[in-house]
Amino acid sequence: MIIDVDQLRALSEAVLKRAGVPEPHAELQTDLLLEAELRGRPSHGLLRLARIVERIGNKVADPITTGKHSWRGDAFLEVDGQNGLGPVVACSALDAIVEKAHTTGISIAAIANNNHLGMMAWYAERVASKGLTLLALSTSEALVHAWGGRRAMLGTNPIAIGVPASPRPFVLDMATSLVSMGQIHDYAHRNKPIPANWALDAQGNPTTDAMAARDGSIAPFGAAKGYALGLAFEVLVASLTASAIGRDVRGTLDSTAVCNKGDVFIAVDAAVSGSMAATIGAYLQAIREDAPANGFEFVAIPGDRSLAVREERLRNGIPVADGVWNDLLALSKR
Amino acid sequence: MIIDVDQLRALSEAVLKRAGVPEPHAELQTDLLLEAELRGRPSHGLLRLARIVERIGNKVADPITTGKHSWRGDAFLEVDGQNGLGPVVACSALDAIVEKAHTTGISIAAIANNNHLGMMAWYAERVASKGLTLLALSTSEALVHAWGGRRAMLGTNPIAIGVPASPRPFVLDMATSLVSMGQIHDYAHRNKPIPANWALDAQGNPTTDAMAARDGSIAPFGAAKGYALGLAFEVLVASLTASAIGRDVRGTLDSTAVCNKGDVFIAVDAAVSGSMAATIGAYLQAIREDAPANGFEFVAIPGDRSLAVREERLRNGIPVADGVWNDLLALSKR
Repeated sequence: MIIDVDQLRALSEAVLKRAGVPEPHAELQTDLLLEAELRGRPSHGLLRLARIVERIGNKVADPITTGKHSWRGDAFLEVDGQNGLGPVVACSALDAIVEKAHTTGISIAAIANNNHLGMMAWYAERVASKGLTLLALSTSEALVHAWGGRRAMLGTNPIAIGVPASPRPFVLDMATSLVSMGQIHDYAHRNKPIPANWALDAQGNPTTDAMAARDGSIAPFGAAKGYALGLAFEVLVASLTASAIGRDVRGTLDSTAVCNKGDVFIAVDAAVSGSMAATIGAYLQAIREDAPANGFEFVAIPGDRSLAVREERLRNGIPVADGVWNDLLALSKR
Repeated sequence: MIIDVDQLRALSEAVLKRAGVPEPHAELQTDLLLEAELRGRPSHGLLRLARIVERIGNKVADPITTGKHSWRGDAFLEVDGQNGLGPVVACSALDAIVEKAHTTGISIAAIANNNHLGMMAWYAERVASKGLTLLALSTSEALVHAWGGRRAMLGTNPIAIGVPASPRPFVLDMATSLVSMGQIHDYAHRNKPIPANWALDAQGNPTTDAMAARDGSIAPFGAAKGYALGLAFEVLVASLTASAIGRDVRGTLDSTAVCNKGDVFIAVDAAVSGSMAATIGAYLQAIREDAPANGFEFVAIPGDRSLAVREERLRNGIPVADGVWNDLLALSKR
């Protein structure tokens, strides 16, 4: 099914409002989900709406709160998310630290007790398009094994980085896992074997059986170095937000557990000059225009592909899986 | 040759003082080089002393300055390194932002015109052992090709992260290249072929010839994701420090060019509680004690191996290559 963006937006907002979400919060949450759909990341898109509604019904997501803010230092915002909706709590914190960074140059939000952030690029782009640099980290339930380990000990611990540049901001958004659990579920649904290095089974042995991998753990990206980086993010986020760590993290994958992971946003207002923004844009363009290596059609810059997909989908609509579309219709009529 | 640490320390300090380096600066620079030797990272050790002395002689390293500090916001320290010695300028900036972070909670130093920082772990450990979290980034001359590209467009762009923990801080220090140019030089010296995925030759084709790789480019770690991350660091550091980017970066590999890369340090004073530090320590210990996967003897935590080497070398001395030892003796008698 190819559905028009505006129609999906109206449906999602209606579903959320019916679940008790105030209009501005429904708009934020919907925009986040739709941007994931537009950029070709359906695992972070409308698929998630049913679970958000369930979490509200189960009282592990509070649709009203924007989180409780406490400044622990001139530039350190401690946020108790009060189980609010991920993007609602995060955007409230971002607005506060972006405002603060205008005078301090840098500021941080350390958020505990917040629900899932969804696609991290959305936050990085939001801040970078205002001329500030953003560094965003978030933890999740343990799904990733240590390099050389046998069981899930780390979250997929994504990082997003947004940097002002012309003609548009540079935005990186990546998990520190080799693949996502969503990809493994996708292989399982299609009864296809997964590549040999993707995952371990529940006993910690390599497997190409997607069903076995679902009960096991995903590999970190980048072997020992990628593992080390994901581990550093796990430790850093837990430490700064005083939230849960490793196998104690809950509520990022289900509809019933309170979410106890942490989120960290660091905003820097470096007053990046127009000429520096142009220099960065020219540098990225030079990489794009470099001759591709054997086996490659072009040299990619993070975000390019998803923005091309976005342009196309804004024009032609978003392909929505039958199951997701039917769930959406059912939710909107409840 | 196995040489006692104290003897090496005295020799290095004498060499630097003879080159016009004030005693406290000679002590800092020496401690950094020796810590690299102690931790089994000779590529960042005394091997570098001769070049530092040459750079001072060539007036591209100023042994006196600690850099010029300008606060651009309450928590944003802009540093003109004035071509000072890497660790001297960096430690002066670190002291200032650590002091500032006590009241602001977070602070940043954006450093331009500084010489090579050397082993990044040294800075992360310095700050984390004071109870603060440190995030450190630095760029370098372009040595790394884009994923799918043919020529060096990115620095090896290391990241270091230090987080307070008990019994000791967590410290990550890694380059975003798959291997270091030092490793490739080492293979070239020993006339050994390098693994197939390490590097491209000057034409951008895969090579196992270490000599050809020296004139070509190194692969990013972690395939597309590692490349994206290294690129994000390149863009972020250049943007925040208004320093050179990509192939315009100079002076990190030779004795004659002014060094125009950038360094970024972010210090966070989250007042990490003793119980959180213990929780992180226990988490790391649980990973260490996890059953290792097939083909692994144990599960590693970043920094463990280098600290074990350090203990042993503090007791028994440091193995120094003949060439490095002879250079050191010659320098000390100049």
